[in-house]
Amino acid sequence: MSQPHPISSSPEETVAIVGVGLIGGSLAAALRQRKAAKWVIGVGRDASRLEAAQHAGLIDEGSTDLAEVARRATLIVFCTPVDKVAEGVRTALFGLSSSLFSAGLPLTANSLQLLLTDAGSVKGPICAALADVPNFLGAHPIAGSHRQGFEAADAKLFEGKLCVLTPQATASANDRVRLERFWQSVGMRTVTMTPDDHDSALAMTSHLPHVVAAALAGTLSPENRSLTGSGFRDTTRVAAGDPDLWTGILLNNAAHVMDGIEEMQQRLEAFRTAIKLGNADVLKQLLEEGRVSRETLDQ
Amino acid sequence: MSQPHPISSSPEETVAIVGVGLIGGSLAAALRQRKAAKWVIGVGRDASRLEAAQHAGLIDEGSTDLAEVARRATLIVFCTPVDKVAEGVRTALFGLSSSLFSAGLPLTANSLQLLLTDAGSVKGPICAALADVPNFLGAHPIAGSHRQGFEAADAKLFEGKLCVLTPQATASANDRVRLERFWQSVGMRTVTMTPDDHDSALAMTSHLPHVVAAALAGTLSPENRSLTGSGFRDTTRVAAGDPDLWTGILLNNAAHVMDGIEEMQQRLEAFRTAIKLGNADVLKQLLEEGRVSRETLDQ
Repeated sequence: MSQPHPISSSPEETVAIVGVGLIGGSLAAALRQRKAAKWVIGVGRDASRLEAAQHAGLIDEGSTDLAEVARRATLIVFCTPVDKVAEGVRTALFGLSSSLFSAGLPLTANSLQLLLTDAGSVKGPICAALADVPNFLGAHPIAGSHRQGFEAADAKLFEGKLCVLTPQATASANDRVRLERFWQSVGMRTVTMTPDDHDSALAMTSHLPHVVAAALAGTLSPENRSLTGSGFRDTTRVAAGDPDLWTGILLNNAAHVMDGIEEMQQRLEAFRTAIKLGNADVLKQLLEEGRVSRETLDQ
Repeated sequence: MSQPHPISSSPEETVAIVGVGLIGGSLAAALRQRKAAKWVIGVGRDASRLEAAQHAGLIDEGSTDLAEVARRATLIVFCTPVDKVAEGVRTALFGLSSSLFSAGLPLTANSLQLLLTDAGSVKGPICAALADVPNFLGAHPIAGSHRQGFEAADAKLFEGKLCVLTPQATASANDRVRLERFWQSVGMRTVTMTPDDHDSALAMTSHLPHVVAAALAGTLSPENRSLTGSGFRDTTRVAAGDPDLWTGILLNNAAHVMDGIEEMQQRLEAFRTAIKLGNADVLKQLLEEGRVSRETLDQ
């Protein structure tokens, strides 16, 4: 057997996960279960929550000091809301460089090879804000749940799912390979896209469905609740997601999401017109398009 | 123990189910499993399908002759598409009366107490078309699946679910009680409503969600398929339903469904405007309304 390249084959030394919620907690669990990291640090603001996550066996250590952790980590994953990622990366880099500078400390092997990535659902604004940070390589693991908190963490959340990678043009080949291997180490397939291509696609496959589900759930009057069936429940399931989180996602992908909403409005108008005219052929054709499209997803 | 009233407590003698698909097949399975009918006849156009349903243990007997079956049945349930129910009831009644008349046969005990009901998702047009048939009492068991055919039949499909009953004003008290007991005998709760109140509510809880899911599924381009996650799948699941069936449902409930689509379009416009203006407060409020509404369904 050939000896694989050490960086791509050995587990990451020390992975810090900033934001230990559903995604961060699941990532921590997957890394530990698959022995894909030697040490997993959970970083957050609430020490008691981190302690609970540690007791739950998700992380090896909890810390509220991102700057300090940045000196020891080899890889930091930001699993915070999308509008907090760039700020978090700056905090980590500033803490790292200032502590090195003020203490006269040498750059450690860890800090020299520090790789920064994230799990945000929108990539354009984050990657633009961090265009000058060649070792930040954006990522979006397409896996999730409407549930929240590390209590719902699942080590198998990422298995077989797709992770979109959006590295900067300035990213080194070595970092690109490490990024791929990292997300693959928790069971994901990876694909590389530009941030804008990612955001344009995800507007249609994730952000628009969320708006649609929330809008549909909003049309339900209290007296009609008992008359809902599994169809209404399925169609509105994602509306249970965190409004704060989704406000950030939608505003950070505003242009693409607005295009998606307009397309949805136009399609609804086509349905309304066909029903108004009693045009069974057109209506059936519209329903058939939806059916065919939906069925390809189960193949 | 007191002796219960024979009509309400004893199983139905002979139940005919017209249309042995997912709903009809599940109803047959439930009736047999719960011993709520002594004999279950499946009625359809395709003798080989009925034979297969009989071999699958769903029905005691299959028949392609509704008029003949109408002479023997004590209760007929029409599980056909909504635009075929009234026609089916007429066929049964005409076959029954003409065969009695032409053959000079006496009215049997069965035919004298024949109760007709259905499982259609829209009640207004059916009940209006059969306003002169006091022993037709409309019903809508709110249970289903996007799957089709008796192969997907499930004897537990109706358990704990709600069945809306829409009896004519001219229906006898005895028939009303029998109708309730019948749907309760397969595990359902029952509620009585006017056909229009039912159709107005179901437009919002079932028909609009179907349109929304189909429209959303229709926005998915082939190149974006691999970038969908569980959210897109959940939100569009019902779009896999039979386009023929749903064309009938939507056209038979046109006015209420058009109102629902307009309300949905207006809600989407509110989202679009909030995103366009970058108004995080309004956007969060809209998302919060959807979340609260959705979460009440899981309580």
